Amino acid sequence: MGVQVSVVGSGVEHEQEAEEVGRLLAQRGCTVVCGGRGEVMAAAARGAKSAGGTTIGILPGTDRRDANEWIDHVIPTGLGHARNVVVAATGDAAIAVGGRYGTLSEIGFALILGRPVVILEPGLELEGVPRAATPADAVDAVLAALDTSR
Amino acid sequence: MGVQVSVVGSGVEHEQEAEEVGRLLAQRGCTVVCGGRGEVMAAAARGAKSAGGTTIGILPGTDRRDANEWIDHVIPTGLGHARNVVVAATGDAAIAVGGRYGTLSEIGFALILGRPVVILEPGLELEGVPRAATPADAVDAVLAALDTSR
Amino acid sequence: MGVQVSVVGSGVEHEQEAEEVGRLLAQRGCTVVCGGRGEVMAAAARGAKSAGGTTIGILPGTDRRDANEWIDHVIPTGLGHARNVVVAATGDAAIAVGGRYGTLSEIGFALILGRPVVILEPGLELEGVPRAATPADAVDAVLAALDTSR
Amino acid sequence: MGVQVSVVGSGVEHEQEAEEVGRLLAQRGCTVVCGGRGEVMAAAARGAKSAGGTTIGILPGTDRRDANEWIDHVIPTGLGHARNVVVAATGDAAIAVGGRYGTLSEIGFALILGRPVVILEPGLELEGVPRAATPADAVDAVLAALDTSR
Repeated sequence: MGVQVSVVGSGVEHEQEAEEVGRLLAQRGCTVVCGGRGEVMAAAARGAKSAGGTTIGILPGTDRRDANEWIDHVIPTGLGHARNVVVAATGDAAIAVGGRYGTLSEIGFALILGRPVVILEPGLELEGVPRAATPADAVDAVLAALDTSR
Repeated sequence: MGVQVSVVGSGVEHEQEAEEVGRLLAQRGCTVVCGGRGEVMAAAARGAKSAGGTTIGILPGTDRRDANEWIDHVIPTGLGHARNVVVAATGDAAIAVGGRYGTLSEIGFALILGRPVVILEPGLELEGVPRAATPADAVDAVLAALDTSR
Repeated sequence: MGVQVSVVGSGVEHEQEAEEVGRLLAQRGCTVVCGGRGEVMAAAARGAKSAGGTTIGILPGTDRRDANEWIDHVIPTGLGHARNVVVAATGDAAIAVGGRYGTLSEIGFALILGRPVVILEPGLELEGVPRAATPADAVDAVLAALDTSR
Repeated sequence: MGVQVSVVGSGVEHEQEAEEVGRLLAQRGCTVVCGGRGEVMAAAARGAKSAGGTTIGILPGTDRRDANEWIDHVIPTGLGHARNVVVAATGDAAIAVGGRYGTLSEIGFALILGRPVVILEPGLELEGVPRAATPADAVDAVLAALDTSR
């Protein structure tokens, strides 16, 4: 079992950074976990696949065909928004790219579970959560946090 | 069906405010919804019962006996932290009193679902979420928001 | 906290028995728990209210207005079919009236959690699960099982 | 995205059949989905890996290390028994090997979602659910059902 990192977030204006995060995670040997749908989720998965990586998409609905085309392993939960809990739990760490309320809930759950979380600038303002200026810094930060926590 | 308001949060230092929030909600005819356990959850339920109100406790585990003694209707979900989703969904609105990561996730879910949320001062710092200085102001604010949203 | 009993099932042809089960449970002081929607769920809640009882409806969606009119306390979970787990966990015992696959999942979960389950005749065929010929027998059986398990 | 098939069940006496089911599914190019823990779940995953296949384990808890050693992709849900819903939803079809109440709930959910289900003999008695005499027959039956349903 390799390291699994969740990429959470939303916003079409953040797709480029999300794709870079996905690509860098795959290059470092991490499986990319996401919510399986569009925007940041699709971009992160696309980036991972462009580097030959592996992707897991955890869907709110029950139909596998709702997953974007860069998802290797689809987990259709049927849990609606509660699937955010599973997205957070499935990553050994999480990187937030853009995002709004759903991302807030995913960060909350990742922190409850003790997973290292990094917010990529610009992003949600959350006191006490580490931030990174670039995709490379974000990936470095979560992998360093995982090394330390072992 | 009367109005149901979720009181979310944690921290023994916030119990007095939580009890006051619960009491005021019950006086205004609202059913108080909470996570059914201790600290802020118990205080809110105790406040509601002191004013003759009704309480619902939504537990992470499957054993009803984990509920605090001020809970009238116990919902043992067995969902672990994901029960936070159900706490958020069961309130027509939410008031946050203190709290940390779990509260963050509950606020995130309440906002996803379009429920009015008010953070009682001092509390989590979350951009764009209305704040109230006192329990009375918090209760007024969520009930006013519910009136408007109908 | 009084005893909470879940009534699970479906099928318009079973509404009369479900209403009688709800009525008898309320007369015995039990809160009736159900999935909050139509057919057997609505009938059980209607029966409980006709006897002055209390009802809890645990919905698959997030909108309280989806509950039938005989529900006192609405739990909109947003969990989809997974709300069946919460229906099963919220009852100290369960009575199955008619039903198909959803009922099967609820019985499965009630049994996992060690809740006494009784199937009202005619109903699902499940080896090892006690059956009752009438609503009165079903109510007697689950309440007797609860007494014994304490 | 290849075909994903869930293997559900329990009982040490059924491990040999479960391993054969996992092996045959992998040979047919299917990803094997299971609950990620021991007995039938471990055996199915072990069988899949022995044939060079891919496995997904959907855990009740939040700790990846609870997965058995033959799981490639771990989904720690934190949902407790409600993870059975996700196990059922993640398979395009399901094969039941042995099992008790948890398996009952998984079959119930798979049927709710319209997934083809086959019970391997000897197994749970459930009216209307197709049965197969051997692992090979079970694998043939679910793959044929999937072909037909497309």
